[in-house]
Amino acid sequence: MNKPLILITNDDGITSPGIKVLVETMERIGEVVVVAPDSPQSGMGHAITIGEVLRVKEEVHLFGDVEAFSCSGTPADCVKIAKAEVLKGRNIDLVVSGINHGANTSISVLYSGTMSAAIEGAIEGIPSIGFSLCEFGWDSDFSHVVRYVERIARKVLENGLPKDITLNVNFPVKQEEPIRGIKVCRQGRAVWQEEFDKRTDPMGRNYYWMAGQFNNQDTGEDNDVWAIENNYVAVVPTQFDLSAYKAIDLLKTWEL
Amino acid sequence: MNKPLILITNDDGITSPGIKVLVETMERIGEVVVVAPDSPQSGMGHAITIGEVLRVKEEVHLFGDVEAFSCSGTPADCVKIAKAEVLKGRNIDLVVSGINHGANTSISVLYSGTMSAAIEGAIEGIPSIGFSLCEFGWDSDFSHVVRYVERIARKVLENGLPKDITLNVNFPVKQEEPIRGIKVCRQGRAVWQEEFDKRTDPMGRNYYWMAGQFNNQDTGEDNDVWAIENNYVAVVPTQFDLSAYKAIDLLKTWEL
Repeated sequence: MNKPLILITNDDGITSPGIKVLVETMERIGEVVVVAPDSPQSGMGHAITIGEVLRVKEEVHLFGDVEAFSCSGTPADCVKIAKAEVLKGRNIDLVVSGINHGANTSISVLYSGTMSAAIEGAIEGIPSIGFSLCEFGWDSDFSHVVRYVERIARKVLENGLPKDITLNVNFPVKQEEPIRGIKVCRQGRAVWQEEFDKRTDPMGRNYYWMAGQFNNQDTGEDNDVWAIENNYVAVVPTQFDLSAYKAIDLLKTWEL
Repeated sequence: MNKPLILITNDDGITSPGIKVLVETMERIGEVVVVAPDSPQSGMGHAITIGEVLRVKEEVHLFGDVEAFSCSGTPADCVKIAKAEVLKGRNIDLVVSGINHGANTSISVLYSGTMSAAIEGAIEGIPSIGFSLCEFGWDSDFSHVVRYVERIARKVLENGLPKDITLNVNFPVKQEEPIRGIKVCRQGRAVWQEEFDKRTDPMGRNYYWMAGQFNNQDTGEDNDVWAIENNYVAVVPTQFDLSAYKAIDLLKTWEL
């Protein structure tokens, strides 16, 4: 059997440590091509580039022998241009995005460039996975998650994924005890409670830094926030059909 | 009863014709405050501003007596800063976003700044609606949609919305025959088929323009694309819980 073709992207940019770990892990499984943003794109959500041009540059020394390209666009752009141009005519077997530096559990899935790239893969009909480590910082330790990344990617290649569904995989920070296992679960209910830090620039004009606290509103144990807090890998099957089916009948009674 | 407080935003920018129509319509219903991007933000999806500062500027002449502020951030940022700073301590009764110049039916809901602002409102627990006209262009005719905008907004204020659900409302382009009514429906299944137009700049370097065809893959009649094609207003109740519940049990059988 031919080696599977694996497209790798992320939102922290092509030089992040997390994508390097992902490339090294995927090389054990298949043929790897990287198309990732040339600069950090955290919080870009499902943004795409409209009204601006895109640049794509081959990066020949970043990952040894692995074909790699940086792109001036968003994570979703990277998947689109990888499919339509960089890998034109080739069949992509798997899209993996990450490993993100920072959690994409719960409501953060909406703001996440990492997950938007994975969702974009699913829209294109390709089995796709987003991986995130629940810790910021460029010096994070990824050693405890590598075996899980490999296992989950192999399972997806083996089994495929249901139509229009991608996986949102979050890993707990490394602790003294090993990870307790994998929990397949739902997206937790939480909100970012914003605080805006108002300052004055040297010209006397006001500006704001957005900061926030993660406010968990979920008391269940079957969600990704709980899983991470309890040292499990959280796997949330994630869809891009946002229809609230349960509300359709209710709204029909409104006689709009 | 006090007049309801209505926050208006959009993604085409505070000077777009569509937001002006929305302001004029909402003034008939309640007290209006506008916090909208200072420049076009189409395709920004649910992006938020991280690592950059935000500016907010009062715009005193844009909408007559209506309080209005332009913001340097994304549509989602606008809702966050409106709630946390501009309208701090006040209870917002309704968030309305739009009227967008261009369709946000089907898969476009994911890329839409208009809808991300509405979803952000729902995350904050505020009844929220995104309105879009299925036509680009600054000279679009909105005259046929005004009564529907008003009717839907009044209904939402009257009935509230189910928890964690926002409305994605799309209007057909003005036709000779009047709009046939409102269809409450689901998000259609479609994909943007990208084509990248490769060009060479004066320095000899390549760049790309992303373009695409909307490829409808849905044969049903209960979805927003069908509704628009048949001259109905499409109302899709839209949620931000992306969990694919039906897939959870399947994935548990994988023994990850």
